[in-house]
Amino acid sequence: MYLGVDLGGTNIAIGVVTDAGQILTKDSVPTIRTRPYPEIVADMAKLCEKVTADAGLTLDDIQAIGIGSPGSIDNKNGIVEYANNLQFHHAAIAEELRKHIDKPINLENDANAAAYGEYRINGEGASSFIFITLGTGVGGGIIIDGKIYRGFNGAGGELGHLTLVHKGEPCTCGNLGCWESYASVTALIRQTREAIIAHPESAMNELIAGDLDKVSGRTSFNAARQGDVTAQKVVNQYIEYVASGLLGVVNVFQPEIVAIGGGISREGDFLLKPIQEYVEKYGYNKYMPRTTIKTATLFGDAGIIGAALAAQ
Amino acid sequence: MYLGVDLGGTNIAIGVVTDAGQILTKDSVPTIRTRPYPEIVADMAKLCEKVTADAGLTLDDIQAIGIGSPGSIDNKNGIVEYANNLQFHHAAIAEELRKHIDKPINLENDANAAAYGEYRINGEGASSFIFITLGTGVGGGIIIDGKIYRGFNGAGGELGHLTLVHKGEPCTCGNLGCWESYASVTALIRQTREAIIAHPESAMNELIAGDLDKVSGRTSFNAARQGDVTAQKVVNQYIEYVASGLLGVVNVFQPEIVAIGGGISREGDFLLKPIQEYVEKYGYNKYMPRTTIKTATLFGDAGIIGAALAAQ
Repeated sequence: MYLGVDLGGTNIAIGVVTDAGQILTKDSVPTIRTRPYPEIVADMAKLCEKVTADAGLTLDDIQAIGIGSPGSIDNKNGIVEYANNLQFHHAAIAEELRKHIDKPINLENDANAAAYGEYRINGEGASSFIFITLGTGVGGGIIIDGKIYRGFNGAGGELGHLTLVHKGEPCTCGNLGCWESYASVTALIRQTREAIIAHPESAMNELIAGDLDKVSGRTSFNAARQGDVTAQKVVNQYIEYVASGLLGVVNVFQPEIVAIGGGISREGDFLLKPIQEYVEKYGYNKYMPRTTIKTATLFGDAGIIGAALAAQ
Repeated sequence: MYLGVDLGGTNIAIGVVTDAGQILTKDSVPTIRTRPYPEIVADMAKLCEKVTADAGLTLDDIQAIGIGSPGSIDNKNGIVEYANNLQFHHAAIAEELRKHIDKPINLENDANAAAYGEYRINGEGASSFIFITLGTGVGGGIIIDGKIYRGFNGAGGELGHLTLVHKGEPCTCGNLGCWESYASVTALIRQTREAIIAHPESAMNELIAGDLDKVSGRTSFNAARQGDVTAQKVVNQYIEYVASGLLGVVNVFQPEIVAIGGGISREGDFLLKPIQEYVEKYGYNKYMPRTTIKTATLFGDAGIIGAALAAQ
């Protein structure tokens, strides 16, 4: 039995996870991210004990704790070197948590942990597996031969920061034209707003009651399903950006499986089919077996499950 | 002692290579690429015997033969599944060569073989090593934990087919805007010609005696060194394309070392420094150790040496 900790900028979510990756109990508390990290870790420890008790277990039943955290991670030493949204600089999370709970602790980047969770549950033992999350940013994780690929410095796997449009839209990372600046939900919301301003007659404008602040990642997809032409154009363009970046990932990695996650992956085939067609049509590989592209299955639980299983 | 075979569209180059990667003898014969593959392999076998004799050895001294071939490779079965410039479809190269010389044979994609050669000679045992060749195309090879990364189907590592400019210049692969369409020497020649047509007063026009057919990958670099402003702009723009694509590669792989090869890498620091500066300035990773970017060292021998060493 393992504990999986999904440390986010808003909440700390923790679950008791079986060897097979099933969540027995889970709960969350606010991160209150402006605090020094020892305070955050103290709350993390309390929640570890609570969810363990909720499962009718004691800490003696827990073999190890896995943590997924945003930022650049020193996996070997359990340190978050830097996490912008948590104000962590060289935060020795694993050592700090061990002061409360003396167990083996494994710290991963949160996107890598989620990727590993998807791989273990949804990866069919693929020799190479890539997980993409379309969310506030475009996150990613690369699993090769069953292991998380981290690069030599632990900062690898930033698939969202492939350049898609040379000298294009500014990205939060400081570069211009990253895939993330076109294929994240943040980017989709920007693209949707621009389309509504240019075409106020669009059904999208009704869905948001004329309030651009109400635009979400679902606005264009919902209106497109109702037959709105402007919304369909937004959706088509967005999907093309997703597919165009993914095409590069497939050309380089030729992974056995790509799983696409994040809330927007709930659109299912409406999102997936055109991506598959684009990669099939424009992909470099025309003579060897093709990458399977599918939607992810774990959604919000990927982080907890992946962190726990990576601690095995 | 090993034989390394660099099978190209123009020549078959073969060398006797020591365990440490030193070439003792080498020679080449024309490929005559329109022939059926058994004829090409028969010439390959003859040249294997010749270079072995040239080294004062017999085939008994040869432990294995490594072949680097263009195209999509089935490494396990020694088959070139498809190679456009050789007109190979499901060509059982290893089996065919064994009819002539009964030795263990290892077949790799030529870019992967060259990458492996650079890694072994120039890679300092890096845990992750990426080789980029700027040539007719942009080739690449990925070495992770000392092994060639091939993807699940053998077609992985096509770094030149990352999208750099969404919906940009057409690429030979059928996609639009691949890195290769901007950062290959072929692209540089196109960019140079365009600049000469727009600025016939440029020193580049003198270097080619007004004959656009004489434009090479060196034209802009040579004129820029003479202080020609238009040429410097061509060089700056080209280097920016190289660097912008490489930035994505670094963001994703965080490799310990990137080595840049191909004839243009002989430009040395004139090429390398601005690339290093660009990646440092715009790279995602600002808090962890950085990738070392350097020029390759083996040039034309990388294929022979890498093929041989990959057969070890």
